Amino acid sequence: MDFRSDNVASVAPEIMAAIAAANAGPAAGYGDDEISQRLEPAYSELFETDVRVFPVLTGTIANSLSAAVLSPPWGAIYAETNAHINQDECGGPEFFTGGAKILPLEGINGKIQAEDLQRAVDAGPKGFVHAAQPAALSLTQSSEAGSIYSVAEIAELSAIAHGANLKVHMDGARFANAVVALNEGIQSCSPADITWRAGVDVLSFGATKNGALGAEAIILFRTELADEMAFRHKRAGQLASKMRYISAQLEAYIKDGLWLRMAEHANRMCWALADGMGAFAGVRIDAFGGANELFVEFPGATVIALREQGFEFYDWPETAAAGPDKRCTIRLVTRHDTTPRDVNSIVAAVKKLAV
Amino acid sequence: MDFRSDNVASVAPEIMAAIAAANAGPAAGYGDDEISQRLEPAYSELFETDVRVFPVLTGTIANSLSAAVLSPPWGAIYAETNAHINQDECGGPEFFTGGAKILPLEGINGKIQAEDLQRAVDAGPKGFVHAAQPAALSLTQSSEAGSIYSVAEIAELSAIAHGANLKVHMDGARFANAVVALNEGIQSCSPADITWRAGVDVLSFGATKNGALGAEAIILFRTELADEMAFRHKRAGQLASKMRYISAQLEAYIKDGLWLRMAEHANRMCWALADGMGAFAGVRIDAFGGANELFVEFPGATVIALREQGFEFYDWPETAAAGPDKRCTIRLVTRHDTTPRDVNSIVAAVKKLAV
Amino acid sequence: MDFRSDNVASVAPEIMAAIAAANAGPAAGYGDDEISQRLEPAYSELFETDVRVFPVLTGTIANSLSAAVLSPPWGAIYAETNAHINQDECGGPEFFTGGAKILPLEGINGKIQAEDLQRAVDAGPKGFVHAAQPAALSLTQSSEAGSIYSVAEIAELSAIAHGANLKVHMDGARFANAVVALNEGIQSCSPADITWRAGVDVLSFGATKNGALGAEAIILFRTELADEMAFRHKRAGQLASKMRYISAQLEAYIKDGLWLRMAEHANRMCWALADGMGAFAGVRIDAFGGANELFVEFPGATVIALREQGFEFYDWPETAAAGPDKRCTIRLVTRHDTTPRDVNSIVAAVKKLAV
Amino acid sequence: MDFRSDNVASVAPEIMAAIAAANAGPAAGYGDDEISQRLEPAYSELFETDVRVFPVLTGTIANSLSAAVLSPPWGAIYAETNAHINQDECGGPEFFTGGAKILPLEGINGKIQAEDLQRAVDAGPKGFVHAAQPAALSLTQSSEAGSIYSVAEIAELSAIAHGANLKVHMDGARFANAVVALNEGIQSCSPADITWRAGVDVLSFGATKNGALGAEAIILFRTELADEMAFRHKRAGQLASKMRYISAQLEAYIKDGLWLRMAEHANRMCWALADGMGAFAGVRIDAFGGANELFVEFPGATVIALREQGFEFYDWPETAAAGPDKRCTIRLVTRHDTTPRDVNSIVAAVKKLAV
Repeated sequence: MDFRSDNVASVAPEIMAAIAAANAGPAAGYGDDEISQRLEPAYSELFETDVRVFPVLTGTIANSLSAAVLSPPWGAIYAETNAHINQDECGGPEFFTGGAKILPLEGINGKIQAEDLQRAVDAGPKGFVHAAQPAALSLTQSSEAGSIYSVAEIAELSAIAHGANLKVHMDGARFANAVVALNEGIQSCSPADITWRAGVDVLSFGATKNGALGAEAIILFRTELADEMAFRHKRAGQLASKMRYISAQLEAYIKDGLWLRMAEHANRMCWALADGMGAFAGVRIDAFGGANELFVEFPGATVIALREQGFEFYDWPETAAAGPDKRCTIRLVTRHDTTPRDVNSIVAAVKKLAV
Repeated sequence: MDFRSDNVASVAPEIMAAIAAANAGPAAGYGDDEISQRLEPAYSELFETDVRVFPVLTGTIANSLSAAVLSPPWGAIYAETNAHINQDECGGPEFFTGGAKILPLEGINGKIQAEDLQRAVDAGPKGFVHAAQPAALSLTQSSEAGSIYSVAEIAELSAIAHGANLKVHMDGARFANAVVALNEGIQSCSPADITWRAGVDVLSFGATKNGALGAEAIILFRTELADEMAFRHKRAGQLASKMRYISAQLEAYIKDGLWLRMAEHANRMCWALADGMGAFAGVRIDAFGGANELFVEFPGATVIALREQGFEFYDWPETAAAGPDKRCTIRLVTRHDTTPRDVNSIVAAVKKLAV
Repeated sequence: MDFRSDNVASVAPEIMAAIAAANAGPAAGYGDDEISQRLEPAYSELFETDVRVFPVLTGTIANSLSAAVLSPPWGAIYAETNAHINQDECGGPEFFTGGAKILPLEGINGKIQAEDLQRAVDAGPKGFVHAAQPAALSLTQSSEAGSIYSVAEIAELSAIAHGANLKVHMDGARFANAVVALNEGIQSCSPADITWRAGVDVLSFGATKNGALGAEAIILFRTELADEMAFRHKRAGQLASKMRYISAQLEAYIKDGLWLRMAEHANRMCWALADGMGAFAGVRIDAFGGANELFVEFPGATVIALREQGFEFYDWPETAAAGPDKRCTIRLVTRHDTTPRDVNSIVAAVKKLAV
Repeated sequence: MDFRSDNVASVAPEIMAAIAAANAGPAAGYGDDEISQRLEPAYSELFETDVRVFPVLTGTIANSLSAAVLSPPWGAIYAETNAHINQDECGGPEFFTGGAKILPLEGINGKIQAEDLQRAVDAGPKGFVHAAQPAALSLTQSSEAGSIYSVAEIAELSAIAHGANLKVHMDGARFANAVVALNEGIQSCSPADITWRAGVDVLSFGATKNGALGAEAIILFRTELADEMAFRHKRAGQLASKMRYISAQLEAYIKDGLWLRMAEHANRMCWALADGMGAFAGVRIDAFGGANELFVEFPGATVIALREQGFEFYDWPETAAAGPDKRCTIRLVTRHDTTPRDVNSIVAAVKKLAV
């Protein structure tokens, strides 16, 4: 049973059906087809404001192209130390911006703290020509640690950023899980509330981790960035000639709330994991923010035994190696297609090992 | 009826089936899945030599990343003036190489002539530090004009290139159509014969135009380039987290000769178009190389009338505008899913208009 | 005697004196010194309009940074085929722009023709996302062929460019020679007349070839580009910590008309060369535009003999090799420090050989 | 009296004389002149090994081009947090490498600690394609904090770096001061001992801060990097057409030990400052490593009073603002042309204020 990542998930039947439906005869290339043309109205409705939508293949390029329209080559982007944009894109954002810097801020539980951002911004070089000029703030929602920014937190961070003339990017690879968790656990909020109404300018809207085949959308709330993005998107090799098959995923994904239903299921499976495991001797929940990632610390022997029984997951950080006598944190990720049986199995296995 | 481009084609049923089959439960991300792991053996068998395969979304990025491993930032790449790598990637190759130049060579009927390449290479700057250093030759097979390089032509051009320390790239967005046309029309040759055996170092192997959903493969015949390519591929945002759905397309595409069957059909439809139209008064075949592109010159009034009857195609060059009294060349492209009825309809329409 | 290039010239005594004068005790770094602060007022006066001035070391970087503020990464710049910006910067403009293309236009006698520019601009992609977007026109004054654009020619070309939303750059590595030649030979015109009044937006103002030690100035007539340029200039490594020694050169260069006096002398020496040589049998003036470059065709044997007598010059194109029985064009360049004796010597030598 | 930076220094008479001497008639351009040709033999002798030398204008470009030959675009470079390469080049290294990352390591007293480097290297991604790949270590000698790495420290750090397949760069903007300080204070060592013999692969060899007009040399101890560097150097706009005037500075700088004599004087002035000030009430030496930078903490009122008396210096960090009631650290930098009177004046002033 596989708890490695939401990347291992299958494609949702509704999305497979949409791809199949898109396959009815010829259609214009490069996004001039009808499905692609429907995306911006649909996403504008979802976000309750006019948005521009650029479909792309991966989160890496969604983040990198977002960075490129938010920062000049001599700019800098604040991001949490463990954010994908800092650590997991192999320098993509630096490349696509033409040499901007990512300035890491060590967060608490994966989240940038307002005081830290304020301090960084206050100490910033502000026109001092020798230093890269802070140009943007990138927030990951939900974060790499599985935690979630509240609307108020995003609004506060955005206000600090805008006050210093920075633009705000949100890496929403797991945006759906965050929206669901916010509404379940903390507050009622719409996609608009936690993005542009809270100050977000550009969103990497993830679908791949949550049931799509391979589709992310760059959502521009600042629509004046679209002209520039069109060229960057093309020359980055993201203007698919058969765009309709990517667009079909992105359309089906948000139709009738599919994206939220899938995320809700994934989150619920993670709650069940957290509930089930928290009780056992020697097991410690390291972090669980209400979305679909759970970090649990076990005795190393337990970790080894779980793997021997066929459970799949990553040690966290990935480079850490569990030893039989050394406690170790693992990350468990649930998905739209994680089953209650998957959850029950691993909980039962842990229970047995904890005895 | 749609003769605009092979991009308007639907996805082949076999490829849709392969995608569906890939959707059976969780699988490792980022190309560590079983399907992706089978690609290199399969393509090595197809090309009768060890190759490294990097799946990507578009031809733009296949060409751009190929350029990046074949030319240093201070390099230059010879290409035919109308080649995609020169004119249709919005500067992608210049960007991904870090600022290399594309040096256009005006071809005959879309093909670079050996004498012209030889002359350019002889006049090249060879270490003269003020000039970009020719580093590669890029050949488009089949070419933008629908013509096809013979094995001997590619071998001759490659020999000139290698003799000057240039590497050789082939843009094979329509490689399948070229292979089929060569075997039908000119000579018996395998995929190996017209690539690495004739001196090609890196191939952009297209599948999207010929029945895939969105999948191209960068084929490295020089396998030592793979280490570098792995990082370039990732930071370009092309390492899909659910790579298996792209790999499944590329696997099905070459299985049991599907790619050649589809190209054969497309080419045959184009022969039928050429045969059908060539006979009429006032109609002149501008270019037809035996693959799936036909360039025909009509009286402007005919072009306008055809459009009014619902036939879709591009004027060529695309920026040219037909007027009622001005003859105009149009491009007709056939596909794996072009039907004999499509062909008969447009031929009949032209016949009527030619009277 | 050395006719290879204006690069071989010595530094003018007035400029050496200015450097020495700048060396009186400590001064603020990075352009905050008094001399550097005086540059913009002085050049604004020279050009009769407010300009922003960025001192740099070489013409390569002046052209490359100019390109970078005039074209986005997905842009393209029209330039004459033999222009430095196309052929002699080893891809610098492509690099500093982030991957823009230089689109060469074959000129007549080194000068872009209005009809050719108009045709290129009319056929341009204008928003077509697949192609690099023409963003600028670069004119070399005086040109690589030693010819000079008249005010009317520049105004016409600029009008075409601006009409298509392109900005206009002038590569003025030999700007002084052009100004002098225009005033002597063709028309009375000020530096303002042949730059911004004729539509030039950014000028690479050369001093090194005409008596400076190592100093060029990027002159921004569009002062709104200065903010961006400040950062590009710094990160390109051109913000010298002891900027005053570069600024001192640029200040002395234009003080009391020194730059024009030096160019006038250089041009006069070239007139003398042209006058002297034109008369001899077997000698043919290929090109002489009134500035400081003369292209003369000789019998190969003459070229070889001149070299044996110690005269230095380049075959043109540089890659051409003269043979004893093969006529060959050489380029002779005169400088602020070329003496009448230098000129008389080579004329006498040619006379003797021509007999 | 000016203690702001070594950048405010005048040019040494010997170097002015060398420039004047280079101005005797025409000479070949682009480094083909005799003086430039003598550089590599001279520096090879100085460093007791074959080196390749690339003269450049500024430290920014010396560091940026060094980075570009030491790291691929997908690479990363470890550097101390306050190192110029991290904080003061406005993203130049990120740009010239094509998007590499600088990974800051917080040093002690400006110096990277071996344990910290070892830990970083051990945790490094080593082929993990999602992360930028550590490719180099950059050490600043003397450091931004005025401290100096011993030979043993450099050897240890280099060994860790090389053990992990990283190359080693030294930013030697104040290399002369470091060499002198090492020999005076700590150990006898040659330029070779503290560079390539201790594992340094590439050195940014500064001269501008220590009496040159505008000249730094990139010294390649790994001579196989020279081919690549030649093109990067040119397209960066650093191949000066009148290279001889830069080369003349670099030649005179090391002739007969001039560079060391100047640095020795500068260091001695700094020792005098440190000795003089250390004794007064309320004054605290923050950092002095034996070279030419002194960091002293004063009562804010003292700092204000010193400025009113005409002494010039920077608060440190530069963004810190002294208040009358708030203690403040200032940086005092001595130079080859700092006089004992300068030193005595400020010491006397502090003495008076300390009473």
